[in-house]
Amino acid sequence: MARATQERAVRTREAILQAAAEVLDENGFAGASITKIAERAGSTTGALYFHFKSKEGIALAVMRAQPDTIVPRLSSVGLQRLVDITLVWCWRLQRDPLLRAGVRLSVEQGAFGLQDDTSFREWAGIMEECLAEARAEGDLLDSVDATEVAEFVVGACTGTQLHSQLMSGRSDLPERVLRMWRFLLPGIASPEAVSRIKLDLERGRVG
Amino acid sequence: MARATQERAVRTREAILQAAAEVLDENGFAGASITKIAERAGSTTGALYFHFKSKEGIALAVMRAQPDTIVPRLSSVGLQRLVDITLVWCWRLQRDPLLRAGVRLSVEQGAFGLQDDTSFREWAGIMEECLAEARAEGDLLDSVDATEVAEFVVGACTGTQLHSQLMSGRSDLPERVLRMWRFLLPGIASPEAVSRIKLDLERGRVG
Repeated sequence: MARATQERAVRTREAILQAAAEVLDENGFAGASITKIAERAGSTTGALYFHFKSKEGIALAVMRAQPDTIVPRLSSVGLQRLVDITLVWCWRLQRDPLLRAGVRLSVEQGAFGLQDDTSFREWAGIMEECLAEARAEGDLLDSVDATEVAEFVVGACTGTQLHSQLMSGRSDLPERVLRMWRFLLPGIASPEAVSRIKLDLERGRVG
Repeated sequence: MARATQERAVRTREAILQAAAEVLDENGFAGASITKIAERAGSTTGALYFHFKSKEGIALAVMRAQPDTIVPRLSSVGLQRLVDITLVWCWRLQRDPLLRAGVRLSVEQGAFGLQDDTSFREWAGIMEECLAEARAEGDLLDSVDATEVAEFVVGACTGTQLHSQLMSGRSDLPERVLRMWRFLLPGIASPEAVSRIKLDLERGRVG
């Protein structure tokens, strides 16, 4: 009985998070009311306050859920995994309201008084792990610092998606990110790795 | 007499723009009232509406003023000029409220219902001119498209400054942008140009 209650609570939290992402993706932070989110989730505002305390709490949870929408879908390792993360990210940004709202809030958060770098740190940490594998394989140039590359890729992807969103509603985002890798790989990877790494948009389509 | 009136109008507009930038930089769009801006400018709300029509009008003018805070300060050409633009940009972002407010609004504009890509297009155009000079000098790799590089640099700088702002209040921005060039140059420039281009933070300090 206690377990069933707990499972129900987890499901309720997930339903609220998904509904909140949809409403935040469509309306931004200012336009997303607690009532609207509860309505979309088929829940009560009481349940919403129970799970997230405030609208800021929901926004933080949505921002921090980003990696969970990508990482479980990956199978490659090392430098190819790093490239694949960004390709899956592009593909899912076009399709997944939870990821889209997370990215939108991360970019716009200053406008509603938040200053949360958690998702930036998490992404950089995940990418750094890929680069540690790449280093062990001899795929990374000796002159290159894995942490610095990881942080650069996070920032470059964030800005590229904002640019793409303004210019094309994100429809050209995958091509823009592929170009980033074409420009970037020769400065960070061994020539052998540059010729081996697959830069193929199809790799982003993992459901 | 008509000329004196015109000059006074230009000065008033500039004073309002500068005051608006300070208030927007400190408070963001939502927290910047027309009254507060007029007060800071030592002007009237009437003058403000005369010159800019609305708060959105002021925000657009601030966003679009970005290149004017950088370009007149440059003396180099070609690829070095492109690098220098980004270094001056970092230096002035730490010091110039007009540039800082322009960048902040460009990033956060979705939160208050704007979708203006003018400053992105202008920056990309300015950078493309540098890259055309670089191409004429043989500094750019044949495989590389100047427009694509320019657009990538605009996006990468935008995201890098957001990342730096969250992580260090922009104090590490110049180092982050220098690293971008170290990673990026081998993939876009001739080996000779890579070794010639000066990556030196001091180049950003142009007043």
